[in-house]
Amino acid sequence: MTTIQDVARHAAVSVSTVSNVLNGRADRMRPETLARVEAAILALQFRPSKLAQQLKTGQTPLIGLLVPSMTNPMYGYIAREIESLAQELFGYRLLIGSTYRDRDKENAFFEDLLSHGVRRVIVISSLADERHFELAVERGMAVVSYDRGATPGKRSRVGHVMPDNFEAARMATSHLIEQGHRRLAFATVAGMTMSRSAKIDGFFAAADAAGLRAGAKVLDGGPLNEYGDSVIAEVGRATALQIAGAASQPTGIVALNDLMALGLMAGLREAGLVVPQDVSVVGIDGLFLSSISNPGLTTVQLPIPEMARAMVERVMQAPENTDIDEHEMIFKPAQLVQRQSVAPPPGARQPRSKGKTSTTAT
Amino acid sequence: MTTIQDVARHAAVSVSTVSNVLNGRADRMRPETLARVEAAILALQFRPSKLAQQLKTGQTPLIGLLVPSMTNPMYGYIAREIESLAQELFGYRLLIGSTYRDRDKENAFFEDLLSHGVRRVIVISSLADERHFELAVERGMAVVSYDRGATPGKRSRVGHVMPDNFEAARMATSHLIEQGHRRLAFATVAGMTMSRSAKIDGFFAAADAAGLRAGAKVLDGGPLNEYGDSVIAEVGRATALQIAGAASQPTGIVALNDLMALGLMAGLREAGLVVPQDVSVVGIDGLFLSSISNPGLTTVQLPIPEMARAMVERVMQAPENTDIDEHEMIFKPAQLVQRQSVAPPPGARQPRSKGKTSTTAT
Repeated sequence: MTTIQDVARHAAVSVSTVSNVLNGRADRMRPETLARVEAAILALQFRPSKLAQQLKTGQTPLIGLLVPSMTNPMYGYIAREIESLAQELFGYRLLIGSTYRDRDKENAFFEDLLSHGVRRVIVISSLADERHFELAVERGMAVVSYDRGATPGKRSRVGHVMPDNFEAARMATSHLIEQGHRRLAFATVAGMTMSRSAKIDGFFAAADAAGLRAGAKVLDGGPLNEYGDSVIAEVGRATALQIAGAASQPTGIVALNDLMALGLMAGLREAGLVVPQDVSVVGIDGLFLSSISNPGLTTVQLPIPEMARAMVERVMQAPENTDIDEHEMIFKPAQLVQRQSVAPPPGARQPRSKGKTSTTAT
Repeated sequence: MTTIQDVARHAAVSVSTVSNVLNGRADRMRPETLARVEAAILALQFRPSKLAQQLKTGQTPLIGLLVPSMTNPMYGYIAREIESLAQELFGYRLLIGSTYRDRDKENAFFEDLLSHGVRRVIVISSLADERHFELAVERGMAVVSYDRGATPGKRSRVGHVMPDNFEAARMATSHLIEQGHRRLAFATVAGMTMSRSAKIDGFFAAADAAGLRAGAKVLDGGPLNEYGDSVIAEVGRATALQIAGAASQPTGIVALNDLMALGLMAGLREAGLVVPQDVSVVGIDGLFLSSISNPGLTTVQLPIPEMARAMVERVMQAPENTDIDEHEMIFKPAQLVQRQSVAPPPGARQPRSKGKTSTTAT
């Protein structure tokens, strides 16, 4: 690879002369010197290293993106949207890593980003608390956290972009109630995040509003391992066994997310329960996979492209401009997408409510 | 952020003295000077910039990873494996990007990697020819190409890691033939890559060996757009319509990959065809999604972790050691995983062959 030294040798000038040319400081240079340097740059096809430029500015045109696991299609979807916008709007690329929601891995990643000169970081669905994010901001980074709210009552210089998880779960649950379900469950995994907690609140709020709190319960299918997705079938199976073995089986289930819903439907099939005839299932996310599952998964579609744009724009703001505490951007779910995984409960009359405002799609 | 200048000021020494300490050139330094610099480094919590170190070595501890699209769960799976190994074995992280199999996007990515000082690149499933890879090698990069063979008869300094796509498709097709299928189809998408071509060859080889070539055909469901996955349902639907409308319907279908198989099964359902009673489907990849689909997808499992390791180890070799032309590493499929998407064809007697060597899993 051609270096600045090669150019200097070729032009028979000093390295600092070449550097002056590259950095637009050629005004006091003799024209023939400038011409010689330019000719050498062209002859050697020299491209100035971004590294060298970055050393001057202390900035690398990279956004660090931390996801729980790259194998989860939802994070792949978000990452792709962030990548497109970062590239198109700002010419930035992504330095990406999986954190498996492990605090040590997250910290190690932040350290590496800092030493790479990366000053802009988006963290998707962190499980840990955010003190290390605040420390990173103090060290000059712009940090946006997805799917976590700011800690109430605390000023934060971390940007927060998130879907309205409460509303998403409330919509999903209300849809089941409209279809006549009275025994409801929320299927989740072990470990509580802010977004999981908000979804559970939304689930209970919908049940409360319909006077169905007594029949509403949370089912925990157990932990995800570091793969975070390939075991979702196991988690779904565990939840399905809980349901099949329950004295009073729920007939309508809201799943934590689409992937969980798909795993749950697989588990229910193995337990001999038919969706939607025996049990109805609603997901949250709107992954493309939900449109090709069997039955097609009714799900609450989140506005991923809009949230990705908000994250990129926020993280590209200068860190020094972010010392304000209104950085919580909450996005309403786009819509409830009705497919084939929901029906009235077994033995039910017609659904209680017919007034639907939601969208039908396949 | 603390700079080397801050440390020099704090220790009341020159920047080059600090640099000497950081780079292990303190042997001719006065002990009290060394102690002062070390104390300043500790007091200011200075961490030497990887950028500065990289400028010296011309190396950045990053692997560039180009994938067609980050939303495809298969590439997410490969990326995760590569990331883990690169981090654990070498302390490298990933600079990732989607190329949508677009030559201009690939070239732009290579240019950016070069200017970031990234010298190690893994390219997944490129559609374009590889001349730009060879150019990158000439410019000092180590390049590994996944799922493309070397161009026959040409020396190449690009590493090639790939599954035995011919054998994978042959295994999938033979399984259908063993189950009694005589009208066979290979479902693919528009656009020919080396891996697609090898799979089609394997499909026809199995059909030939059983004297079924006349009943074997390739179905092209049309192009993927840049999303490369969320439209797989559309492609599957188009293929399903071809099948449903055919004078002589195929009863056994090998899909290009698991995602295509899932889209195809969705399309077949919409066309009123039942898998496996009317049509049997076999995938290739072994994605975790194939285990939670309905019916569970019978698929040829590729050895992703082993291939990921080969890619990382190969790309971490010094580019100057790669001027040899045996860099094609081909991996046999791990196994045929039998699930519920294959049955004898409609109206068939028992399967012709009962001698199974493959594994059953759920």
